[in-house]
Amino acid sequence: PESLEAARERGPGEKALLRPSLLPSSLRPPPPCDTEWATRTWGPIQRTAVPMSFSTSRGESSSRPAGMRRLPGPKEERRCASEIRRGAWRGAVINSGKSQHNEDQACCEVVLVQQRPGQRGNPAGRKGLCFHYWGLFDGHAGSGAAIMASKLLHRHVCEQLRDLVHVLRDPAPAPICLQSDARALAEPSRAPLAEQDAEPLNDALPRFHLEKAVSHESLVIGAIENAFKQMDDQIEREQATRHVAGGCCALVAVYLLGKFYVANAGDSRAIIIRNGEIIPMSREFTPETERQRLQLLGFLRPELLGNEFTHLEFPRRIQHKELGKKMLYRDQSMNGWAYKKIEEDDLKFPLIYGEGKKARVMATIGVTRGLGDHDLKVYSSNIHIKPFLSCYPEVRVYDLTQYEHCPDDVLVLGTDGLWDVTNDKEVAEVVMDVLMGYEPNDPCRYTVVAQELVVRSRGVLKERGWRLANDKLGSGDDISVFVIPLGGPGNYT
Amino acid sequence: PESLEAARERGPGEKALLRPSLLPSSLRPPPPCDTEWATRTWGPIQRTAVPMSFSTSRGESSSRPAGMRRLPGPKEERRCASEIRRGAWRGAVINSGKSQHNEDQACCEVVLVQQRPGQRGNPAGRKGLCFHYWGLFDGHAGSGAAIMASKLLHRHVCEQLRDLVHVLRDPAPAPICLQSDARALAEPSRAPLAEQDAEPLNDALPRFHLEKAVSHESLVIGAIENAFKQMDDQIEREQATRHVAGGCCALVAVYLLGKFYVANAGDSRAIIIRNGEIIPMSREFTPETERQRLQLLGFLRPELLGNEFTHLEFPRRIQHKELGKKMLYRDQSMNGWAYKKIEEDDLKFPLIYGEGKKARVMATIGVTRGLGDHDLKVYSSNIHIKPFLSCYPEVRVYDLTQYEHCPDDVLVLGTDGLWDVTNDKEVAEVVMDVLMGYEPNDPCRYTVVAQELVVRSRGVLKERGWRLANDKLGSGDDISVFVIPLGGPGNYT
Repeated sequence: PESLEAARERGPGEKALLRPSLLPSSLRPPPPCDTEWATRTWGPIQRTAVPMSFSTSRGESSSRPAGMRRLPGPKEERRCASEIRRGAWRGAVINSGKSQHNEDQACCEVVLVQQRPGQRGNPAGRKGLCFHYWGLFDGHAGSGAAIMASKLLHRHVCEQLRDLVHVLRDPAPAPICLQSDARALAEPSRAPLAEQDAEPLNDALPRFHLEKAVSHESLVIGAIENAFKQMDDQIEREQATRHVAGGCCALVAVYLLGKFYVANAGDSRAIIIRNGEIIPMSREFTPETERQRLQLLGFLRPELLGNEFTHLEFPRRIQHKELGKKMLYRDQSMNGWAYKKIEEDDLKFPLIYGEGKKARVMATIGVTRGLGDHDLKVYSSNIHIKPFLSCYPEVRVYDLTQYEHCPDDVLVLGTDGLWDVTNDKEVAEVVMDVLMGYEPNDPCRYTVVAQELVVRSRGVLKERGWRLANDKLGSGDDISVFVIPLGGPGNYT
Repeated sequence: PESLEAARERGPGEKALLRPSLLPSSLRPPPPCDTEWATRTWGPIQRTAVPMSFSTSRGESSSRPAGMRRLPGPKEERRCASEIRRGAWRGAVINSGKSQHNEDQACCEVVLVQQRPGQRGNPAGRKGLCFHYWGLFDGHAGSGAAIMASKLLHRHVCEQLRDLVHVLRDPAPAPICLQSDARALAEPSRAPLAEQDAEPLNDALPRFHLEKAVSHESLVIGAIENAFKQMDDQIEREQATRHVAGGCCALVAVYLLGKFYVANAGDSRAIIIRNGEIIPMSREFTPETERQRLQLLGFLRPELLGNEFTHLEFPRRIQHKELGKKMLYRDQSMNGWAYKKIEEDDLKFPLIYGEGKKARVMATIGVTRGLGDHDLKVYSSNIHIKPFLSCYPEVRVYDLTQYEHCPDDVLVLGTDGLWDVTNDKEVAEVVMDVLMGYEPNDPCRYTVVAQELVVRSRGVLKERGWRLANDKLGSGDDISVFVIPLGGPGNYT
């Protein structure tokens, strides 16, 4: 890739400086985590043909036909009877990529969360909690982070939920203060500690006048947020010692106790299609949507800009001869534009630059949230980009019990390869068209929808490149899709 | 007021530490601005009975009947024929307050923006631009800032727009780079400078590949944003040398070239009621809605917390004996809650504390955007609160030309005194009920709506305090309302 200097010289806009990085040829499997992971269970999901993983290679020199590949099999198979219903979680994931090394990764699991030993209200043998989990990981600058996240993020979610098993099982409001772990662990024989752990209702001290009620839902949101942070920290530790390349966007759906939690960090997207209506379940995090957060950080911590970038945004690069003229700009506080007199400092490269899919942070990366990227630097410089990236997802909640769902109601998760060429409405049309052609209880119907979405977005190889049905250019990116039924026979509720 | 220490001792929640500050008895009029202000014009607005200002005092010892007071009269009266139509901008503003000194202020103007001399495309006598302007200013800790803003903010909007007159009049896209002012002013004889100012279309250099189109709309948004900043800076200068007390929320509506720009900094609110449908035109900026922005600032600039506050949020105050236990918290990156082990540092007072109307920044202030407050400190400490407050509004745009409006369609601006006791739906019902009782072309009808909204929110004085029709407690705050018609006879379009 060209240097930043070269990019400035040539004038901006042609090409981002995203450093290419190949998949390490022998990526070692991620090490076992240092905590005892809850048992992973699989439902009948792998006995039907879904989920499956379907990859095509669209390298420059070849147009190989699609190859089929199964998701990694379960380590252990066990039912979690209270949660799993007949084939309910059948989803379909399909990858169809342009590159020799597909950077998209996916994961679909049913996870049993076991309470920690010695915790309050834990009579031996009391069952844990089950959650269903779907994850899409769109890698960049290598697939190392995406592979690692696809194998481990659900475990971090599980780990974060372990503290909450007894709280979430209890219909009472969450206790604001818990017994310290240290005490619980130091005195394992005293479990259950129900009485000691309860809020001091009859305490001599006056009750608190201001006490915020914290919902169970917001505890699950907090658990998922911190799971992303733990995953990111783990990738950082790996990147320090092994060759785990790149970063990834992560889009995750967790189904727990009647609710879907959709967590998004990056530019993938999730929508629910219910009775033909589209309900957005995520928003994209890009240099444009997060401009003000990034500019504020650059403004408050100018040292992060390495004397190479300005936190101000301009509609185009400034030429040296324009010094002293008035040019349009906006800063971290503005949504509109105004004119300012150009000073020497404004000639630096803008922190956020470009528009739409070409927008970049520090001329390097086009997404502002995700996992990994700890080693990402501006080309031929020592300026780290990670401080500007957030590993935290936005989590949206959908309560499945609030509506009567029919078998045609689905949650669709897709990487940007899908959404770049197929908008929400088109996706909804494909979903409805395809489902109409199958019996409501045919388990294949969701798989076919996912395949159809991928194939339509990839297009057909013609003389002038990959073309869609409307002759527009097909997606040049990897494409991954989950189609998750919300209702019908074997629904969750 | 009690000290922070005392507040900590007594347990939180009863009362915020907002320092009471009376209106200075002899507030000097704000000085003339250092730039030449455009002429202010008034339409027939002051010849009908609207706008009027209606204040009631609801001091603890008195329940005096309402007094009437007219808004300050126009300095100069001139028509701006191209913009002003028959009585179109009639709005009504009514103040009804609990306090001896009503801290709400209002302003309603028609302003002519004159192009700067010597600017591009300015043949002598070419007319400027007119905008209609309504502003509500809800003061706190004194009414000095609110009074100043109500007298001057529209002038700052005018000043910011002066650079844009020729750009906004020209249907072509805004030029990204203008001639420098210095050159234009240094060579006044060379005006008009149209050729020199044009973008270098036939320049020897290649055209820019990446060039963002900036809409006229976003220039007006930028102008209003910077007007708020200039107003805030001017209040700061005044506060440094004179006794201008307190700060204020500002809610402003600007009608310019067919569009309404609604700018909000604080907890006032604007809605449009169109054909019975409610369209929100603002959102509130409070410690709860801006929690993450404030926590991030406290995290990145811990010195602003003065070793007294923690940027973390907890659902209630922590007791010293709870050290080492696990308590719910959330930080600048989280929307959900999680448990953390309590450390010594967590015993500090939380930066954001309380819920709903009782939420406060640094136990002091309940709004996070507005003008003024430069001298506001945490009680009996040297910790400044202003760094956490933003003077920038969020600006929403409503294109009046996109819909056919009827005489019952209105824009309602109100301070929190209205919205605390009357929700959007109730306001819409009052609007529709009252308007139905009047002929569509009766100019009084909007005034009566505003009066009715205030009277209903204030309630009636009974033995158990001011009560609403439903016997709930009436608003204890100052109440100000503008009702601005969008269509019908003499509409804007």
